[in-house]
Amino acid sequence: MEARPGTANGVTAQAEPVSVAELLARGRTLCTPPLRAVVAQLAPPMDAVASYHFGWTDRTGRPVAGDGGKAVRPALALLSAEAAGAPAAAGVAGGVAVELVHNFSLLHDDLMDGDETRRHRATAWTVFGPAQAILVGDALATLGTEVLLDAATPRGGSAATPADAARAVRLLTTATRKLIDGQARDLSFEQRDVVSVEECLEMEAGKTGALLAAAAAIGAVLAGADDRTADALERYGHHLGLAFQAVDDLLGIWGATEVTGKPHWGDLRQRKKSLPVAAALAEGGTASRRLAEQLADPVGRGEESEQTLAARAALIEQAGGRAWTQEEARRRHKTALAALDEVPMTDEVRGNFVALAEFVVVRER
Amino acid sequence: MEARPGTANGVTAQAEPVSVAELLARGRTLCTPPLRAVVAQLAPPMDAVASYHFGWTDRTGRPVAGDGGKAVRPALALLSAEAAGAPAAAGVAGGVAVELVHNFSLLHDDLMDGDETRRHRATAWTVFGPAQAILVGDALATLGTEVLLDAATPRGGSAATPADAARAVRLLTTATRKLIDGQARDLSFEQRDVVSVEECLEMEAGKTGALLAAAAAIGAVLAGADDRTADALERYGHHLGLAFQAVDDLLGIWGATEVTGKPHWGDLRQRKKSLPVAAALAEGGTASRRLAEQLADPVGRGEESEQTLAARAALIEQAGGRAWTQEEARRRHKTALAALDEVPMTDEVRGNFVALAEFVVVRER
Repeated sequence: MEARPGTANGVTAQAEPVSVAELLARGRTLCTPPLRAVVAQLAPPMDAVASYHFGWTDRTGRPVAGDGGKAVRPALALLSAEAAGAPAAAGVAGGVAVELVHNFSLLHDDLMDGDETRRHRATAWTVFGPAQAILVGDALATLGTEVLLDAATPRGGSAATPADAARAVRLLTTATRKLIDGQARDLSFEQRDVVSVEECLEMEAGKTGALLAAAAAIGAVLAGADDRTADALERYGHHLGLAFQAVDDLLGIWGATEVTGKPHWGDLRQRKKSLPVAAALAEGGTASRRLAEQLADPVGRGEESEQTLAARAALIEQAGGRAWTQEEARRRHKTALAALDEVPMTDEVRGNFVALAEFVVVRER
Repeated sequence: MEARPGTANGVTAQAEPVSVAELLARGRTLCTPPLRAVVAQLAPPMDAVASYHFGWTDRTGRPVAGDGGKAVRPALALLSAEAAGAPAAAGVAGGVAVELVHNFSLLHDDLMDGDETRRHRATAWTVFGPAQAILVGDALATLGTEVLLDAATPRGGSAATPADAARAVRLLTTATRKLIDGQARDLSFEQRDVVSVEECLEMEAGKTGALLAAAAAIGAVLAGADDRTADALERYGHHLGLAFQAVDDLLGIWGATEVTGKPHWGDLRQRKKSLPVAAALAEGGTASRRLAEQLADPVGRGEESEQTLAARAALIEQAGGRAWTQEEARRRHKTALAALDEVPMTDEVRGNFVALAEFVVVRER
């Protein structure tokens, strides 16, 4: 593995994304305190399990200077409010709600997938047991809806009307259903040797596109934006989500494990049907056929040596799976930016959406 | 075990509840078709897992003349609409939504609790695996919210306003959070030898009271009832839920396994901290102390003979746990009926609420 900054996903930063760190920091600064306040309301021991999962405490409950993830979704929710001409604060409830649903899905998916580490840490189910991971995931999903309904009440601290809050609940609930649908498809892929590119994209649209689409529109919806604005922002988020996932799939194979926090060759060891694999299998040449043979062979499943997995990564690359996925990330990136043109917004807000999109496509983890 | 009709819970029917079978049948007739239509929208294999769980199909997907449970909640939701002066049909979306959330909790709880049978059938997680039980539970909870939001749209086929639908979402979401909270308490009890009566009641208020309270009010909320009416109906449902659970706890020990569909002495074998046990432990006499010693003894846990468990049931009865729980069921029953007096409704609707409450308290399964 020789992944180096700017190379794994084959996209080079066009301009210095100076404001992205600030955008992400703003999302965390505004959304984390209310998020923590909501999570603190959970009955013990659910509060402790959730705090651990979010990276705020260690397994004994001691506070840690945590890495709560990239927090792209809260940043998007705040920008979304600004796109509708409202202050960023109008999107806070949306950012918190989307983070709650995102983390509900992480808790459940890690358990369903049997993943033992996330963000360089043991996953919650391995520390607190499966029952707590199920239960706390359920609780976070429920809190997501409550936070949005509260946005229209005095304690919600937002100017959202009850009708806007209800629209936001609809947006988030539909996204949650698509998210679950995507996970169902992903699980069904485990039983199969071959998955088409279309099936893979459909799965990723659910698992990643749906919630990023909701994040990109939810601030605007809470701020009372019309359907046309909300739809265009959703489309931006949807394509951004697919670009995000294409990059994730690239990093899952060619990313530096010390940066991504994911196990070395983990995606290949699990024979995960990610985009590079699906694209390589669809190509049909010699390398593609050899790859298909290897994936259909039950022998050695999950026990492959580093060398075997490195050779498999090379096959995927030879069959064009890496290049196709890099191109797909670029295409989705471009389509996401085009959706922004349908929404009248200030140059500053547009510039921030553009910078965030670029960050997603050039990131290394 | 000599449980006979009308004896397990110590309550005798005051009047022939002629209309209860009809009330329950009406709930099923009106709510099951839309429930099945909603479940059919799930992506495979989630639709099949859900159909199996609801008792509509066997594990191979073949339709069966199923026993979908008592369906008390849908019946309550329809009555609830009538209590607000609306036709029963105005409560259908509420009945469907509450059934969806109820079954979300059954799917997840059976997995968390390791329960292998329910309603005389293998639980979904034992047939389709833990991941499908988690996923389908998540999907059903999400559909519950969507069904309520749809109630205010033309395809919802109901006269609910968007504001009423949003109030119903709030009602259901709050109930769901309490439900999860109750399950969290129940799980935490497994680590303990003694649980107080108050703690047990608090847990049962969450696990059973919250959703029955929501069912009893949701039809009225969808029909635009004022807060006072909704609150009184919620209180009826809350106390009815606690009566329901007290009876469940009695049946879990002294019920006939061929009627309840639950394993013989299952609650005692699991050392479940149910109301009769908590009340017996609180009594403090000789039998109470012997019971406490047995429950604190790690030896033989889960491996007790039928004889040992029968002797334990006798200890609980000697310490007054059975009588206290029977009395608690009667108290809650009475309090539930008193809440009805705060809502102006026709004698017929009131009579149906009364009959349903009596059914819950005298039931044998």
